[in-house]
Order: sequence, then structure tokens, then C-alpha cells
Amino acid sequence: RIDSARLWDSLMALARIGATPKGGVCRLALTDLDRQGRDLFVQWAREAGCEVRVDQIGNIFARRAGVENSLPPVMMGSHIDTQPTGGKFDGNFGVLGGLEVVRRLNDAGIRTLAPIEVVAWTNEEGSRFVPVMMGSGVFAGAFGLEDVLPQQDTEGKRVGDELRRIGYAGSVPAKHFPIKAYFEAHIEQGPILEATDTVIGVVKGALGQRWYDVTVTGMEAHAGPTPMDLRKDALLASARLITAINQIALDHAPDARSTVGWIDAYPNSRNVIPGTVKFSVDLRAADDDVLDAMDAALAAACRALAEEGRVDVQVKQVVYFPPQPFDETQVQAVRCASERLSLPHRDIVSGAGHDAVYLARVTPTAMIFIPCKDGISHNEIEEASQAHVEAGCNVLLHAVLEQAGV
Amino acid sequence: RIDSARLWDSLMALARIGATPKGGVCRLALTDLDRQGRDLFVQWAREAGCEVRVDQIGNIFARRAGVENSLPPVMMGSHIDTQPTGGKFDGNFGVLGGLEVVRRLNDAGIRTLAPIEVVAWTNEEGSRFVPVMMGSGVFAGAFGLEDVLPQQDTEGKRVGDELRRIGYAGSVPAKHFPIKAYFEAHIEQGPILEATDTVIGVVKGALGQRWYDVTVTGMEAHAGPTPMDLRKDALLASARLITAINQIALDHAPDARSTVGWIDAYPNSRNVIPGTVKFSVDLRAADDDVLDAMDAALAAACRALAEEGRVDVQVKQVVYFPPQPFDETQVQAVRCASERLSLPHRDIVSGAGHDAVYLARVTPTAMIFIPCKDGISHNEIEEASQAHVEAGCNVLLHAVLEQAGV
Ligand SMILES: NC(=O)NCCC(=O)O
Ligand SMILES: NC(=O)NCCC(=O)O
Repeated sequence: RIDSARLWDSLMALARIGATPKGGVCRLALTDLDRQGRDLFVQWAREAGCEVRVDQIGNIFARRAGVENSLPPVMMGSHIDTQPTGGKFDGNFGVLGGLEVVRRLNDAGIRTLAPIEVVAWTNEEGSRFVPVMMGSGVFAGAFGLEDVLPQQDTEGKRVGDELRRIGYAGSVPAKHFPIKAYFEAHIEQGPILEATDTVIGVVKGALGQRWYDVTVTGMEAHAGPTPMDLRKDALLASARLITAINQIALDHAPDARSTVGWIDAYPNSRNVIPGTVKFSVDLRAADDDVLDAMDAALAAACRALAEEGRVDVQVKQVVYFPPQPFDETQVQAVRCASERLSLPHRDIVSGAGHDAVYLARVTPTAMIFIPCKDGISHNEIEEASQAHVEAGCNVLLHAVLEQAGV
Repeated sequence: RIDSARLWDSLMALARIGATPKGGVCRLALTDLDRQGRDLFVQWAREAGCEVRVDQIGNIFARRAGVENSLPPVMMGSHIDTQPTGGKFDGNFGVLGGLEVVRRLNDAGIRTLAPIEVVAWTNEEGSRFVPVMMGSGVFAGAFGLEDVLPQQDTEGKRVGDELRRIGYAGSVPAKHFPIKAYFEAHIEQGPILEATDTVIGVVKGALGQRWYDVTVTGMEAHAGPTPMDLRKDALLASARLITAINQIALDHAPDARSTVGWIDAYPNSRNVIPGTVKFSVDLRAADDDVLDAMDAALAAACRALAEEGRVDVQVKQVVYFPPQPFDETQVQAVRCASERLSLPHRDIVSGAGHDAVYLARVTPTAMIFIPCKDGISHNEIEEASQAHVEAGCNVLLHAVLEQAGV
């Protein structure tokens, strides 16, 4: 069993770097605060006897030697960068949970057969630099180092320059190497575990995602003198589309999601009928065929609206992640560990993207979810209980030990 | 018949003050450009033999003496301030049309029995300072001078200070005096006259208006991990309300209007379910009972949505104008003038507010509409044809002559 107080204290210590008045954390990727957070993790890892390496995209690998160091390591990790209004647990739990496993093995004097390795991936959040999950994406070969180093933040600062500035432009090639298994512990960021009084979510995989930009074009006109039957109201048309888009997920229950999170109306004036409305669409599903069907339903809804002849509708896909099932053996390792520890658990699908989704492309992968209060994340009020954090880390310990061998 | 070329040239000359590259006019109330426009109007009015007075809210009255100067004057007018992206005709046509009537009577050496008066009301548009229709509103007693002089623009400049700065803080009490009749010529700002090939709109009155602020509150949550059935999506709820609000006007056809022109979603992020959405509602109807019924339907739609239990809905009324019927005798004068001039005409109700709506509270009032291209106004591409401008001014001339007596 891991040391619950030590893990909790470490989480709280890391959360002081970039702490916000409302109890959250703002520690954007590759800022001075990120450097301080990274330095603390590196210091702790070295104190725990790990060898630390940094790759060209700034991913930090802390390795605890095994008996057979030619064996591929078992890896645990997540990220320590946060949203601008982030919390203490998102990402940080996966990294410090991994560190706690190392510390506990040290306490107990246990040597694993394979080496084990804790990793902190660069810029998972994507708040300061796109794309999201940058470090794990480069590692897995989803995109190239040359694609992301020139990426700029809103002030024009580049990923490559910022990595050098904070001292984390490492020399290890940013490319995957043989790994026995990857485990990522994370808060659920959703309400299911809490609503079902479950402590551990055994994550079977992650939903596929398709994101779109939609532009509805009508004609702006004065709200007073323009009769209803002569209007080309882009907001009314958008409102009907938003309702139809919600129905698309309901038609593919239970694992489908559709969300319109962003909307912008022009000219956005009380007494002017909106002429142009832009909004985003986020479709998710556990199965690629379902996601394709949802994509077709979106196109059909837009076409049907345009065919009424009042507005023009343009749809452009901007993001695609295929659904990512996790490795059945590793998922089973998480399930068995929960059972062995007598923790209430259930299978769950991750609705959000995680570093594990890229890792799953190159190594057998699984995730361990714990509940977060009211399902709230990406928010300064994000919260998880010490008991759940402890439980999640114990599952991680057991799953890793089983894969690494003693 | 009025001198079409002279009227057109005057309109184009005034439109050069504050002309925009796209062919429109930006001449906000009480700016230096407004002062230049006022100075030009005052100069022209004096050259046409008028006596010019300015009241405490900056309304400019230009009087052509009659035979019986103790008789209340017949008044014509509108405003010369514009929207930030305004056109050449909105308001300006009513003022310069009045001036052309004076000039034409001078040419013909006609003396009217009652004096006639051309007025330019201060700040009709309300773009820089609220409330809209400020000068005519003070004149009609809708609100007090003390209410509006302290009003500030976004830079903190006050109406009273700006009036003094541009030299139009007059000494005449800002209060209505006996007027025989008020006529306002204006572009329709809507599509009906053009769609029906009509030259003159005989305006029977103006729609009543109720404006509201609506706030829909749900709970923001991550778009990925949050199942559809656990969502409190404020934008989806708002989309359904917007559709219902549109139906409210359709249920009270043909003279009712409902518009949601402004919307703001929070946190407005692609992968976050919106937690709070605010939007405006603008309801209009020709009859106060209908407007009341629409108000009740809005309240019922909001209540029904809230009772589903997912979101809270707050509605606050922010503006109320009762429907304003115009004086039947003056409306008939406009109708008869159109017939005498053999101009295709039809009765119409003004969907928009105008200075005439306040004037109608204190004197017999009517309006003369002419078509504007594609019904577009409050836009730099606003356009009216010289033939329609001429026709509208001829109707004004005839209606005024009939009321003033020769
Ligand atoms: N974990 C997380 O918030 N990922 C961001 C991308 C997503 O919306 O799934
Ligand atoms: N004429 C005009 O645009 N008035 C503004 C107020 C309204 O929306 O009716």
C-alpha cells in the first residue's frame, strides 16, 4: 500500500507553484512556473534514486532500475502543465502517483524485474500552444518535432525557444522506444464514478472525436421593420441546428456525445437580426462507425437547413481522433488490482483525450480513473478526496508490479 | 413639386461630413462631425430665410414665418446624427426634405397661413449616448433634461458637456410648445415597400416594443466525459428558447416581430458545455393587447424550460414602448397627398422607433416612408433612389401645405 499522506503532501506542494487565489493552479506549459514545477519533480525523482532524462520536446523520464535493465520499462505518467483556470489534480495525480509508487518500492526495498519509469509529458493541455497532448503526440509519432517546435503562443513565443529558455530542450531523441506497458492514473473529469459511488474507473479506451467549425450565413436586417417571413435569421437557424446536433448524440446513446461549446453572432446587436453565426461542434463516440454515422447526420442536418433556402451553412472538420481502445491485458491488470484491493470499480470509457491515447498507439496501455467532485475539471474548484487519490495510486502500484515482475 | 436635384445635392453634401470609405456616414451625436453637420444645416436654413433657435438639449428649430405667426407651426423633421456604420438617408432625408419644402415655397413666393418649422432632433440613434430618441423624448416629456444631460459615452464624456463643447447647448426650454401637426419623412428601413413596388408608405403608427435580458444558467462541464443525460447545457436550453421565441411572433402574425439579436455564452470554449448563456429578446406588436400576450408567452416559455429542472431562467424587461397610433387626420393628409400626386402608396406600420413616436404624444403626427434598397439600413450600403426621395418630399410638401394653409 502506498503512503497516502506523502502522496497528498506532494500534490499540495506542487500545487503551490502557480497557485491561484480561488484554490486552483495556473501553470501553463513552458512558462517559468512550469520550469519550477519540473525542477521540483526532477529533484524528487533524483532523491528517489531515479535516473532522469529529458527528450527534445521536453518530456521528462525518471527511471528506477530493475533487475534486468535490458527489459523494456513499465511506464507510469501524465502531465504537470495546467489550464489557465486549472486544478491541483488533472495530470499532476498521474505523475506524482507514479513517483509515489517508486518511493513506496524504495521504502519496501522491492526490486522489480523490469525497470520502471515515471514520465511527465510536455504541454498536454494545449492552452498555450497547440496541438494538445504535444509531448506524447511527438513521442508516439502522431506528428513531427519539426511541426511543433515552431508553434507560437499568442505573444509569438515559440515552443523551441521556450524549451531552451526554461532548460528543458533535452538531447534524447523525441521518439518512442520499447515499453512493456503504460499506465496513466487520472481524475475522471466527469460525473459517472461519483454518481455511481464507484472508487475506481477501469478505463477500457477513449472516445473518438471529430471537431468542426460551422458558419451559418443569412442577412442582417433591422429587427423592427423586417417581417418574420422575409427574414434570413442566422441565429434562429443556428438554434435549430444546435437542437438537431444534440439529438445526434441522443440517437447514438449511451456512449455518444455532441456539444456546441462556442458561439459567435454577428453583428450581435439587440435590434438587428443576426446575419452570420459561427459555432463549434464536438462529436464523440466509442466506435468509429458510430462517429462516421454522427458525422453523416451532422452533414445531413446542415444540408436540410440550407435547402430550406434562407441561410447558407458551411461545415469544416478541424480535429479528428479515432476511438482508441486500450490493451485488454493491461485493462484486465487494472481490474484485477481493484478487485484485489476490494475497491468498488466499474468499466468506463474516457470521454476526454489523454496522453494515454497517443501512448496506446505504440505500447499496451491502460488508465485508472478516480472520481472528482461534481465531475468538475478544468476549473479552479476541481477537487478529489485523499481517500480516492490513495485508492487510485494503490491500483497503479499493483498493476505496475504485476507487469514489471518482482 | 420640389426641386429634386437640389434636395439630392443637399443630401450628398451633408453625407460628405463623416463619409466612410464604404459609402456610408459615421457622424455620431455631439461629435465634431455632428457640429459640422449642424452648422451646415443652420447655414442653409438661415440662407432660406428661417429664424433658428436651439433648445437646452440641442434640438434645432428653423422657422419660416407665416401670415399668422400667432398660429402654432406645422413642423417637419427628423435627425442628422448617424449610426457608426450609418447611411446617407436615415434621418437626414426627413430634415433636408423639410428644408427643401421651405426652399420650394421661397422659389414660388408662397406664404403659408401658419408658420412652418424644420427641426433636427438631437441623438436619435442612441449609439453614443442612451437613451435613443433623446432630443424628441425630452421635448415630449418622456424623460427630463436632468436625466439625460449627465449621460456618458464609453469614454466618460457627458451629454451636457459635449453640447456646450460643440456650441449647441441652447437657451430655449427643452419642452414641447403648441404645434399644429408634425410630419416626418423617412426611409422604411425594411423590405415591404420595395417588395410590393410601392413608392409611398402611409405610416399609420409604430409597433410597440418590449425588450428583455434573458439569462439561462446551467452548469459548465467537460464536453467529453459528461454523458448527455447528466448535462445542464445552457446553450442547448437557449437554442430551444430562441426557437420558441421566434414562434411567438409567428403566432401573432402579421404585425408581430420577435428577435434574438445578441447572445453571449460562457465560458465559450469548444470542449466545455456552456454553463451560462445571456441573450436579448426584442418583441414588437401593433396592438398593446397582442404585445401583452407575447410577453406572457415569453414568460411561459421560460417557465416551462426551467420546470424541466436542468437550467434556471431569468427574464428582465429593459425597454417598453407602447404601440403608437398616428393621428388619423394627418395620416389621411399623407394618403391624400400621395393620391393627388398619383404615387403608388400603401398603409404601413413602422416597425422601428422614430422621433415621430414621441412627437405623437404631444401633437397630431404622421410619417411618410419611402423604399430603401433591399430594406437595408443602419449599414453603410443603405441606399434610396433619387426618384423615391423626390416623391417622398413632394408628399411632405403637399401634406404640410394642406395643414398650414395658403
Ligand atoms: N483531458 C482533457 O481535458 N483533454 C482535452 C481534450 C478533450 O477535449 O478531450
Ligand atoms: N429607427 C430606428 O432604427 N430606431 C431604433 C430603435 C428601434 O429598434 O426601433
